[in-house]
Amino acid sequence: MSSSFDFAFAPGLPAPVNKWSGFPKYNFIGGHNDAERVPVAQLIAAATAVLTREGSSLATYGLNSGPLGYRPLREFLVRKLRWHAGIACDADEILITSGSLQGLDLVNALLLAPGDTVLVEEDCYSGSLSRLNRRGVQVLGVPLDQGGLRVDALANRLTDLQRRGIRPKYIYTIPTVQNPSGTIMSEERRAEVLRLSRAHGVPIFEDECYSDLIWDGRRPPALYALSKGVGVIHIGSFSKSISPALRVGYMVASWDVLARILALKTDAGSGALEQMVLAEFCAAHFAEHVEKLNRGLNAKLETLTTALAEQFGTAAEFDPPKGGIFLWVKLPDVVDTQRLAQVALAEGLAINPGAEWSTSKERGNTRLRLCFANPDSETIRRGVATLAQICQREFGVPSRIANINR
Amino acid sequence: MSSSFDFAFAPGLPAPVNKWSGFPKYNFIGGHNDAERVPVAQLIAAATAVLTREGSSLATYGLNSGPLGYRPLREFLVRKLRWHAGIACDADEILITSGSLQGLDLVNALLLAPGDTVLVEEDCYSGSLSRLNRRGVQVLGVPLDQGGLRVDALANRLTDLQRRGIRPKYIYTIPTVQNPSGTIMSEERRAEVLRLSRAHGVPIFEDECYSDLIWDGRRPPALYALSKGVGVIHIGSFSKSISPALRVGYMVASWDVLARILALKTDAGSGALEQMVLAEFCAAHFAEHVEKLNRGLNAKLETLTTALAEQFGTAAEFDPPKGGIFLWVKLPDVVDTQRLAQVALAEGLAINPGAEWSTSKERGNTRLRLCFANPDSETIRRGVATLAQICQREFGVPSRIANINR
Repeated sequence: MSSSFDFAFAPGLPAPVNKWSGFPKYNFIGGHNDAERVPVAQLIAAATAVLTREGSSLATYGLNSGPLGYRPLREFLVRKLRWHAGIACDADEILITSGSLQGLDLVNALLLAPGDTVLVEEDCYSGSLSRLNRRGVQVLGVPLDQGGLRVDALANRLTDLQRRGIRPKYIYTIPTVQNPSGTIMSEERRAEVLRLSRAHGVPIFEDECYSDLIWDGRRPPALYALSKGVGVIHIGSFSKSISPALRVGYMVASWDVLARILALKTDAGSGALEQMVLAEFCAAHFAEHVEKLNRGLNAKLETLTTALAEQFGTAAEFDPPKGGIFLWVKLPDVVDTQRLAQVALAEGLAINPGAEWSTSKERGNTRLRLCFANPDSETIRRGVATLAQICQREFGVPSRIANINR
Repeated sequence: MSSSFDFAFAPGLPAPVNKWSGFPKYNFIGGHNDAERVPVAQLIAAATAVLTREGSSLATYGLNSGPLGYRPLREFLVRKLRWHAGIACDADEILITSGSLQGLDLVNALLLAPGDTVLVEEDCYSGSLSRLNRRGVQVLGVPLDQGGLRVDALANRLTDLQRRGIRPKYIYTIPTVQNPSGTIMSEERRAEVLRLSRAHGVPIFEDECYSDLIWDGRRPPALYALSKGVGVIHIGSFSKSISPALRVGYMVASWDVLARILALKTDAGSGALEQMVLAEFCAAHFAEHVEKLNRGLNAKLETLTTALAEQFGTAAEFDPPKGGIFLWVKLPDVVDTQRLAQVALAEGLAINPGAEWSTSKERGNTRLRLCFANPDSETIRRGVATLAQICQREFGVPSRIANINR
């Protein structure tokens, strides 16, 4: 008879995490936003208004809106998706999710079984890659260029797979402010991607988490819009446009897809107060807020790229994006960004090593992702200077920092 | 070359849901609460205070509290769990979850693999049963009596399994206001359950979702308290005490367990605004609010039991619980509550058929769960009268309704 009280854990669990010890001094990771840009007063007014009007509906699961989520928020999204992304849908084709991460989990649960194949952009959001790996799925990367997913490479990949009798479960793409490259796919290219998707019978999983953050506010229609919703599932989020701590995202799909997704969404609904406050806030202030936010982000990006040019010179290569919260940087081949990230973190500076953001470890090893939304301008400048010093010490590059040979 | 745009769904998905068409007129299902008892004004004051003070922290994932959840809410729980449940823990042994349902999912992901065996109470929360079934786990029921889980039956079950070389992954119990029976396990029996757990090396998964709802507020210490946290994982929720639409629950476990749970909780945190508002509200008003809520619930339970006695006479057997939001009712063997539920729903009256709330279909088929928190007194009375009429029409019982032969 055993007297052990050890829990017998399931096989194949991820490693335990370390205790959280606060944010690093120089925080260039994660989708954090600018504390000064949180519209606190307007959120308070929204909370007061919506709770005064409908607070008692908190007594029921799902408020009075059912499992798709708070109806006024879905109705705001119907309007917003139309003017912003060209999507014509009704409120019953929108599911509110607990962040777009829940959207990823639900779509994967709907479509994927171990051994399946999916196509993703070669450099890709790490949270999507880690989720796919955990599901035992074969993840194939398709190269990008400055216009996003390369259509010629996608065509080759699809043809090759077809020859081998493999039909991928989906093509996952972030067409509008791609993560991490920041590219925006043109309408022409979107049409080509859709044509290939149709020709090969491979649906598209479109992630538009960052698409509100575009400096000039202009963007091509979503793939969901161009396909009129056929063969595309679209997800988005308020994490980047309003607040990442509010866990509110959404999925747009035809009802037959959502009816199956809802059967998998056994969480009794996403947080109601967050949905209510967001709906109230967004109906009045979304466009104006996002415009102001984008001005601030664009200025921070300029601070970052200027600092990189000063500190790294030609050693840091990048294409400044037209929107978003991150910059994808290539360093010389001698640099191992995985090790750089470890050393820097020990010195209070956090970066995303490229290997976690690419399907190719080799590509990723010389690249890094720098998020610029959270630190203020002075912290960005000092942080980049610190990173350059660490990089020089560890790898000998940049050979000159701020035009001074070391 | 295929031109199909059909999504190729994963195998073994649950059936798609139907479109939501509003709540039924007589709503005796679900953990809904009383709309009149939502403390709207206090929630508005809490939202205003906490957002004014800390609203800008919404710019970062997890606020400034890390992945365990908003620290002031965890600190409130440290105090509340001590005076209420006798649990001595610190804020790093508490994880805020998106409802206790996420707690169920995380514990199951931590401990269970297909083919494992778990022990549950014979009559048991349907959401727990359905989750276990979906994981391909063998679920064995242990009989209850008016004092909760029967210790003699648990001992026999454990000994029998041990003889067969099977060590169950956990014993799942709702000791304080058991769902659906409403029983409260005595301290002596809790000690016995712990002794068996220790003797057989089978940990306990303690679900205390309803434990705040006790008419006289008195309850024995939690199993987690009696075991000093060794070999027990404890979950709870604010769904029943404050609002089910706010998706805020919690898990109490030792750090080595939480460190592994956090590795599985890849949702970037639970909703921040709900946590902030709850923490602010609870620190000032929790005890007083729950006391008031309980007075209202107790009155509704009396309305329900009186109506059942009037309408069903001796045909409806039940033990009025000392707390909670539901009544577990036994009807004569001639009644099939699954069919009763279907017929009643078509007539605008929703009940939980017992088969979904029991490990034994035979036991469940003559039982039903009636939730009494949501409908007002008049609706409870009319609903029970309607149910009696439907039951008499379909099954011939009760033979007399409200003392009148039909």
